[in-house]
Amino acid sequence: MTGRPENAHQARLLRLLRDKGGRPRAELGDVVGLSRSRLFVELDRLVGCGLVERAGPAASRGGRRSGVVRLSTRLRFAGIDIGATSIDVAVTNAELEILGHVSAPCDVREGPDVVLGRALAMAEKLRGEGLFDELHGVGIGVPGPVGFRDGVPIVPPLMPGWDRFPVREVLGRRLGCPGLVDNDVNIMALGELHAGSARSVHDVLLVKLGTGVGCGILIDGEIYRGASGSAGDIGHVRVDDDGPLCVCGNTGCLEAYFGGAALARDATAAARSGRSPYLAERLDQGLTLTAADVAAAAAAGDAAAIRLVREGGRRVGQVLAGVISFFNPGLVVIAGGVARLGHPLLAEIRAVVYQRSAPLATGNLPIVLSELGDTAGVIGATRLISDRVFSAS
Amino acid sequence: MTGRPENAHQARLLRLLRDKGGRPRAELGDVVGLSRSRLFVELDRLVGCGLVERAGPAASRGGRRSGVVRLSTRLRFAGIDIGATSIDVAVTNAELEILGHVSAPCDVREGPDVVLGRALAMAEKLRGEGLFDELHGVGIGVPGPVGFRDGVPIVPPLMPGWDRFPVREVLGRRLGCPGLVDNDVNIMALGELHAGSARSVHDVLLVKLGTGVGCGILIDGEIYRGASGSAGDIGHVRVDDDGPLCVCGNTGCLEAYFGGAALARDATAAARSGRSPYLAERLDQGLTLTAADVAAAAAAGDAAAIRLVREGGRRVGQVLAGVISFFNPGLVVIAGGVARLGHPLLAEIRAVVYQRSAPLATGNLPIVLSELGDTAGVIGATRLISDRVFSAS
Repeated sequence: MTGRPENAHQARLLRLLRDKGGRPRAELGDVVGLSRSRLFVELDRLVGCGLVERAGPAASRGGRRSGVVRLSTRLRFAGIDIGATSIDVAVTNAELEILGHVSAPCDVREGPDVVLGRALAMAEKLRGEGLFDELHGVGIGVPGPVGFRDGVPIVPPLMPGWDRFPVREVLGRRLGCPGLVDNDVNIMALGELHAGSARSVHDVLLVKLGTGVGCGILIDGEIYRGASGSAGDIGHVRVDDDGPLCVCGNTGCLEAYFGGAALARDATAAARSGRSPYLAERLDQGLTLTAADVAAAAAAGDAAAIRLVREGGRRVGQVLAGVISFFNPGLVVIAGGVARLGHPLLAEIRAVVYQRSAPLATGNLPIVLSELGDTAGVIGATRLISDRVFSAS
Repeated sequence: MTGRPENAHQARLLRLLRDKGGRPRAELGDVVGLSRSRLFVELDRLVGCGLVERAGPAASRGGRRSGVVRLSTRLRFAGIDIGATSIDVAVTNAELEILGHVSAPCDVREGPDVVLGRALAMAEKLRGEGLFDELHGVGIGVPGPVGFRDGVPIVPPLMPGWDRFPVREVLGRRLGCPGLVDNDVNIMALGELHAGSARSVHDVLLVKLGTGVGCGILIDGEIYRGASGSAGDIGHVRVDDDGPLCVCGNTGCLEAYFGGAALARDATAAARSGRSPYLAERLDQGLTLTAADVAAAAAAGDAAAIRLVREGGRRVGQVLAGVISFFNPGLVVIAGGVARLGHPLLAEIRAVVYQRSAPLATGNLPIVLSELGDTAGVIGATRLISDRVFSAS
């Protein structure tokens, strides 16, 4: 069993090697601000406890040759991203590179026993492929509010039967390693920070348009959770007073207009009414319509589908315009299943935001689609737990 | 001339003595995590450079008597709060207690030469009263967006002629001390943090309802400014698409509904139409109607005025409900001239927020009126500059 860092210097070295990869020892002292002798002492301790290993000499820089160090290639993290309708499980090395990734449809409403059992079976499958013997940590995302300190969902609207279920404790015990649980948008934001477009940006919003609508907030590379852990809940922000009834009991929430269920409802209505020949054909094939169908219909020029995309984008834009005026982010990333509507959706969101937000807030603001797709959540989950494992506490 | 702290330990000691007042030397070591000998070395240096002074022995704690130390009683800070229609200038000691405070009406649209000249004359008046010989720093608030690093207003809508005017440089040079300039809502938030209801709360929103409408954001005791310094700009968040035209060029912004000018406009219309006998009488006396008149009319039972308060509160509540769902603050403080509408306004804001925000975000959320009134800005301005002066950099 490998150890844990003993002090803040060691923690900084571990995170640096995780984020920048292995490198000559001599280069590390400058970055973490340690004297050469102190650096070598700390590195020797990290080698001694199995977290770091030597990887042969680096190319000469004119003088003495400096050995390359890197994180132990034996270290493994797992990321488990539980969505409303799917589970993703991945195993990474210590640099959070994905070694294996499995994905399966799964209805979160089947409850924690069924869903966590399936997640564990997926992890065992990866173990059976020889990807790990032991795990050094597991990060878990769930599609609802989380009590972060306790690692439990809190009255999650899309997850009946999960309220205060000890997700962290169960998965940590079964996998034999430390665990952390967070909201799915927060781990997606961490995924964008680690491997996506948020890598060098300070204040970032990750907007997830899926079954639920939510927002992960990064400030200086850390998740901002708010006073009671519910920060980023933009799905129930008001678009109009007289809009559709929402699961939360109010009317006219963004999610009631443009969550996954709302989009499926509107697509089905368009198909049934004859306004959308494309969607009607899919429906006649006995398929349940999703965002992917609407995207395909819009791409094929189906006018009703294009209208759904544009109206949805306009409403997302209205809510984001307010959020952006308030928060003044340096980057907005759009992700989630509904984001598969792609560039026509993005164009509409941008048009509304650039028209309605404060000009100072949008002057240099990129609004982009996530390039990570389904891997954002699992990478972010391993980032979350590796931040904890690579900390001195 | 007094010195500056040489290291982070000294900076922490200075801020502790500022926020908690003078105290026995022996108590300080535990709080800042220094050994007794190291603590005494750092304190001796602070005494030597004139920032700290000894104030006689403390009461015995059984063993040796421990001398009391406090910030030098000679240190002085100035806070200058430039509003759209007024200037406040105060001088404080190093613990940011107000020693003198003057206030005068002044139209910020008269431009920087006139307005800053008046502010300097007000400071000289306080100097003439013997409140200071030299200043150790001046904090300045202005009613518009600020480039914080450069200390200049940036295209401020309510401040014609001020764009990129070197406010910090001019006031710092004329007053002979370091200066910092910030948006008025940010310094009000710092005032609430130092001396108001935000003292021990982590994530705080200070909502100013005045000529302009804006919001100061405190995260862990620091102002959050966003990627380009415009964070907190909620005045131009959309309430409705088809609302009144706003100075920003859009329609239906919160400020166009319920800023100081909008309230005066609606109050005047209610007076002229005969709907408000109370306000009509004030108008007949040749007065320009303000929030204070509407508050008095509402308190006197004038139905049209009560309706103005309630409609305004509802719209503020709608915008705040979204902001609160997103940010999940631990406290919301309502301040500014329009907040003089008082508890009927607060009741309406609370009703909408508690109905429309995510329950997790409002469960323990107090929404209160500022108790500092006109002093929040000047106290916060001295807090801003003292944070800078009491830092090692």
